[in-house]
Amino acid sequence: MTEAASAGPSTASDRPVPAAVDLIRAKRDGVPLSARDIDWVIGAYLRGEVAEEQMSALLMAIYFRGLEPAELRAWTGAMVESGERLDLSGTGLPTVDKHSTGGVGDKVSLILAPLVAACGAAVPQLSGRGLGHTGGTLDKLESIPGWRATLSNDEMLGMLRRFGCVICAAGAGLVPADRRLYALRDVTGTVESIPLISSSIMSKKIAEGTGALVLDVKVGTGAFMRREEDARLLAQTMVALGTEYGLRTTALLTRMDTPLGRAVGNAIEVEESVATLAGYGPSDLVEVVLALARQMLRLAGVTADPEAVLANGQALARYRDMIAAQGGDPDAPLAVARHIRTVPAPAAGWLRRLDARAVGNAAWRLGAGRARKEDPVSAAAGVLCLAKPGDWVQEGEPLLELRADDEFRFGAALAALGDAFEIGPDRAEVPALVIGQVAG
Amino acid sequence: MTEAASAGPSTASDRPVPAAVDLIRAKRDGVPLSARDIDWVIGAYLRGEVAEEQMSALLMAIYFRGLEPAELRAWTGAMVESGERLDLSGTGLPTVDKHSTGGVGDKVSLILAPLVAACGAAVPQLSGRGLGHTGGTLDKLESIPGWRATLSNDEMLGMLRRFGCVICAAGAGLVPADRRLYALRDVTGTVESIPLISSSIMSKKIAEGTGALVLDVKVGTGAFMRREEDARLLAQTMVALGTEYGLRTTALLTRMDTPLGRAVGNAIEVEESVATLAGYGPSDLVEVVLALARQMLRLAGVTADPEAVLANGQALARYRDMIAAQGGDPDAPLAVARHIRTVPAPAAGWLRRLDARAVGNAAWRLGAGRARKEDPVSAAAGVLCLAKPGDWVQEGEPLLELRADDEFRFGAALAALGDAFEIGPDRAEVPALVIGQVAG
Repeated sequence: MTEAASAGPSTASDRPVPAAVDLIRAKRDGVPLSARDIDWVIGAYLRGEVAEEQMSALLMAIYFRGLEPAELRAWTGAMVESGERLDLSGTGLPTVDKHSTGGVGDKVSLILAPLVAACGAAVPQLSGRGLGHTGGTLDKLESIPGWRATLSNDEMLGMLRRFGCVICAAGAGLVPADRRLYALRDVTGTVESIPLISSSIMSKKIAEGTGALVLDVKVGTGAFMRREEDARLLAQTMVALGTEYGLRTTALLTRMDTPLGRAVGNAIEVEESVATLAGYGPSDLVEVVLALARQMLRLAGVTADPEAVLANGQALARYRDMIAAQGGDPDAPLAVARHIRTVPAPAAGWLRRLDARAVGNAAWRLGAGRARKEDPVSAAAGVLCLAKPGDWVQEGEPLLELRADDEFRFGAALAALGDAFEIGPDRAEVPALVIGQVAG
Repeated sequence: MTEAASAGPSTASDRPVPAAVDLIRAKRDGVPLSARDIDWVIGAYLRGEVAEEQMSALLMAIYFRGLEPAELRAWTGAMVESGERLDLSGTGLPTVDKHSTGGVGDKVSLILAPLVAACGAAVPQLSGRGLGHTGGTLDKLESIPGWRATLSNDEMLGMLRRFGCVICAAGAGLVPADRRLYALRDVTGTVESIPLISSSIMSKKIAEGTGALVLDVKVGTGAFMRREEDARLLAQTMVALGTEYGLRTTALLTRMDTPLGRAVGNAIEVEESVATLAGYGPSDLVEVVLALARQMLRLAGVTADPEAVLANGQALARYRDMIAAQGGDPDAPLAVARHIRTVPAPAAGWLRRLDARAVGNAAWRLGAGRARKEDPVSAAAGVLCLAKPGDWVQEGEPLLELRADDEFRFGAALAALGDAFEIGPDRAEVPALVIGQVAG
């Protein structure tokens, strides 16, 4: 087999090869795939008729060439069709979900689900685990003794009917194509593709059966999208996709340059969430929670004032019921780290910057996060931000509190922090967190 | 595992993942790979530590991003190092090889190897089989009863010492990485990449141990490269690579818009080669053979007139010795097709165009070529071009003679011909075949 002889044929009609390579070549050359092609290739991949190496080549071609709207619709539809679709109509309430593209200290779901439920909409929050520098909602809630993430579909629907909210793991029957494709993307450098991200997120929300969806698309150093234009494109892509599938969808673009709230970890984020539900939340976290709650209620057609419901304790009560119904004891003491080390301010001045990604990486190194999906996480590990940008600090005053189960982790965490913060003589303006909206 | 949480980390330092995904991401993002990275990834792939789906994603990223000269040098070197390197110094003669990127009716190697050997250089012509619309040198020679393509390294060196030329299959020990990578590229749409083609071809020539190399880079409808600029870039890339590895390399760019010579198939190309060695070759074939021979002799430092050696019968004698030494009977009658169908000229006029790819595809459909490397080929099948561009034809006069073992093949062959030829009132100029040269 010589290189050139074999390189000869270049059109599908030349050569009776498996269809997969023709689709890869078409996509590679910028030729759009038909809905039929896409249905076939995803189905054949799941049946084992298209090899892993062919799908990864196709994913890389999609990374470079993108997907046109019709292709993205077909790709997402084929993913949805790979598994079951839930019917949430039995709840008797308008359903609305929220999805965040992931940030550092992003414990919003823990507060938002019971808050919106207490306002009168049903929130089916099917969540995931963390990987890398961002945490996962399920990891955080699992720091509550007894709480279990895995529910049957019936249990999940029962929770929604009883409490108007549920936070649990997505069932294995929901979009199995995404599990296969995501695992492949993870090892082949094809995660960072707007159409592939959009189809992964939206296929799960479509299959979950929610009637409306608010996307929290994070922008900044701690976010997947560091540039606002990329975040806006991702938001537009997902909103258009949701709308095409009859899912009322709106996205907020929110800043993720510094951790949200003060706690970054698992148990400490649960504690901060409970404090927020009790009316003592940090202002940045409350700002994002209320902005998202208002969008969710608007899409659900529910008239209620989430600020009042947060203040009057109804949201906290709903949270306690929800946790208890999944086996968790809302009053149990949470894990406490065996080792604490503080990072002092090297000089007096205004804290001008506290980098989200560096803090997220430090928390991860302390044990709060995982590098691989099968790794365990520490409930107690994390970072508490004692000062936030806009605060005045004295020289030697603790800025960060690092928490770990093992002392040896502090070295890597301090290295990950790097130049995470900046102290200066002028107070930096603290910008509004919600920087844009993309409506369906 | 949520989409966004997992999408977080984007730099190698963030995440202790297998190195393969970091290299894929770097290449994908246009960051050059180091020689160490490339050595590692090719070695690890061959050891099974880098998965097929990771290598295919890397190949697709290379398809889009290319390889810089230093990367290409390292990639090619790692391929060479995957197997043995031959030492041809025992021949006592300057060694020079030729490689064609593949064309229709391209039987040049059969003539060139004995011709250059008869002039005084040694030609180690390690060849391949055909795939698709272009034929393979070994397939052609295997139409000679008794001839065998597979030789041990010692037999190959013995042939070179005795006759100054050998045409045989490349041994399994030579660049095993290419066999693995080519099979992967073939099913993942990553064949058509100039750096990957260049490294595949040149790694085999470097490992083979030839001292000099002339590349025949075909341009036109029947060639892998249809555009001259692409062919020139491929030629420049390979010449630079050869030169860097101490291999004196020159490329000729030659036209491949119409079949070379009149015969397209296996036995009929052997017959045309023997006729050419006997001094009765078609002018276009002789033109290309002599142009390549002169370059080979120049690089080998041998002063001889190949035209004279072709005319005086020395090249033919060398061919007969070479064939006989590999078990072939140069006097044995070759296979004759059971069925012949002619394609007549629909009108009188000048034959202005006879499309190489269409004729190549027709020959393939008749049984002369294969779609998959494990398919057999027919010795007798093929197309004889009774007229060539520049010839005057009468209405009804046979233009093409199609030959097959089975009558049912004519339908597909005629369909593949399509509008392969054009007859008009004006004679089209027949351009020179050698259209450019890239010297090292």
